[in-house]
Amino acid sequence: MSFNSQLAILSDNTVQAIRWLDDELQLLDQRVLPHQVEYLSFTSAEKTAQAITDMVVRGAPAIGITAAYGIAIAARNNEDLDNAYQVLAASRPTAVNLFWALERMRTVQPQTFSTLLAEAKAIHKEDIQANLRLGQLGAGLMRDNSQIYTHCNAGALATGGYGTALGVIRSAFADDKLTQVYAGETRPWLQGARLTAWELMQDNIPVKLCAEGAAAQLFRQGNIDWLVVGADRIAANGDVANKVGTYGLALLAKHHGIKVMIAAPTSTIDTHTASGDDIEIEQRHSSEVTHHKGQAIAPEGCEAINPAFDITPAEFIDVIATEKGLILQPSNETVAMVMSR
Amino acid sequence: MSFNSQLAILSDNTVQAIRWLDDELQLLDQRVLPHQVEYLSFTSAEKTAQAITDMVVRGAPAIGITAAYGIAIAARNNEDLDNAYQVLAASRPTAVNLFWALERMRTVQPQTFSTLLAEAKAIHKEDIQANLRLGQLGAGLMRDNSQIYTHCNAGALATGGYGTALGVIRSAFADDKLTQVYAGETRPWLQGARLTAWELMQDNIPVKLCAEGAAAQLFRQGNIDWLVVGADRIAANGDVANKVGTYGLALLAKHHGIKVMIAAPTSTIDTHTASGDDIEIEQRHSSEVTHHKGQAIAPEGCEAINPAFDITPAEFIDVIATEKGLILQPSNETVAMVMSR
Repeated sequence: MSFNSQLAILSDNTVQAIRWLDDELQLLDQRVLPHQVEYLSFTSAEKTAQAITDMVVRGAPAIGITAAYGIAIAARNNEDLDNAYQVLAASRPTAVNLFWALERMRTVQPQTFSTLLAEAKAIHKEDIQANLRLGQLGAGLMRDNSQIYTHCNAGALATGGYGTALGVIRSAFADDKLTQVYAGETRPWLQGARLTAWELMQDNIPVKLCAEGAAAQLFRQGNIDWLVVGADRIAANGDVANKVGTYGLALLAKHHGIKVMIAAPTSTIDTHTASGDDIEIEQRHSSEVTHHKGQAIAPEGCEAINPAFDITPAEFIDVIATEKGLILQPSNETVAMVMSR
Repeated sequence: MSFNSQLAILSDNTVQAIRWLDDELQLLDQRVLPHQVEYLSFTSAEKTAQAITDMVVRGAPAIGITAAYGIAIAARNNEDLDNAYQVLAASRPTAVNLFWALERMRTVQPQTFSTLLAEAKAIHKEDIQANLRLGQLGAGLMRDNSQIYTHCNAGALATGGYGTALGVIRSAFADDKLTQVYAGETRPWLQGARLTAWELMQDNIPVKLCAEGAAAQLFRQGNIDWLVVGADRIAANGDVANKVGTYGLALLAKHHGIKVMIAAPTSTIDTHTASGDDIEIEQRHSSEVTHHKGQAIAPEGCEAINPAFDITPAEFIDVIATEKGLILQPSNETVAMVMSR
């Protein structure tokens, strides 16, 4: 399928996590999906930052785009822009796309509403185009009748549109190479159950859900060809920060001869971070594990650890699919080579 | 701590999943723990079998004991005993303790209420004693300041009392060797969150909950010494069927230099099953993954795989702690040696 025909499909059908409509930033509230499909409007940098912290919107590229719109809104409101940049940068620590997008917004001259809005829209549009391209490149590695396991949601909902890991999956499906997707439910936020299953079902892509604990046995049965996931930050040496659980899945995949693909635009690659050890892992509140929709699912007073991300060392990754090309056997050299294009 | 002083503690404090009280079989309803502590009475073999299927009671030793009481109830009711044996044997397929207990009940002569009730009580009491013994043996392998990761619930709630994996943990704690337990929440039934955390908190044993996806990163950080879990069936070659997720945890543990202990009475060892490949894995309903307390957590119509157990090959297991002794490096030879004691 050509890039243009994919783009045409995208504009018709694909869900939008972020939209600029009626001169407003509107975010699809991902906390209540798939049961409610509701857009919320955000009218200041501070409220936009809170939406990111509270996970109204999530996914590394999507929070970068959202923050960019947040700066445009601040300019329209005549807010203190330095403060707006700071508040948005402090909304979540791990995904580098947030800092990348804010840096890019800072380079815009003059810092007016119209120029900043144009830049935010450009970041948004380029992200969709990057996803379409990396999706094609990633799918190009798949054989016929592939079965893919994915984790969390690296879909249209996590990006400007189309998705990174789900972009690869959408491209593979369009190319008739995909027979089954397994989506890990991804505790504690259930992004796999609530978001990935929903996105794929809307596109009629065959998906089965599973608890994280069921992955290893599924891998051992020998039917999975690829583990395909997104990324929140990729270090210069190819180490990847992504949703907690990714590291274990990658290790289990390698043990069972399953290939591991990270799908991410180059805006997720942080050449200023030397290795995964240098990436700050966000620790979220215990109650996200111990409670579900405000109801306790563990004893009162029970503590939980709740790291939002983990680090997958480059050695466990076969390929990083970016819009600038495939990074095979990620390392300082192969990452730098693609970044210099 | 001596066996007798442990037994004394047990009789005072430990939660009872199963009790014969007021001439009734009473089961602590594990579906509503930890929020409600409620005993339900079961008055026929069929209702007892349904309680096992519905997971009012769960855990391999506990369902064996429950089935034994179910036979005694059938005898009291003058039910067709052959039918009672069949109905109870069909309640769940994987845990061998169920079949072991029913076989043992069949050997009782005459098959009257009083003789069968006495045998069920003996099975119950012996299970507690086995747990105390294997707990001591398993804890004997621990060094000071150990940190243990456990999965699902192999505690007092899963057994006649004291627990298998949690028996080892209780013994290690009593011996002042344990600084921290991490309990995997264990989707989809959340036995770790609802049952293990609750049991350990009642005994003031320090426990932190985590989502399954967080285990690999925790293992990588280097603070965990042992993975200690129970078993639903152990094959003659030392392969272990246990709660789904165990296989992946064992593989991840071995990769990170963490020792793997299976804690189980010899009633869980099935010398008639040659290897893990011969163990039937129960596939439970998709809705257990897609729904929580009757509410959808995935899109309507979403399918899920839901294997209740997985197989951990013997090569990933350092030791099986049984009441007859420790099986180091499980194999046909070492398993047979302990079984012949």
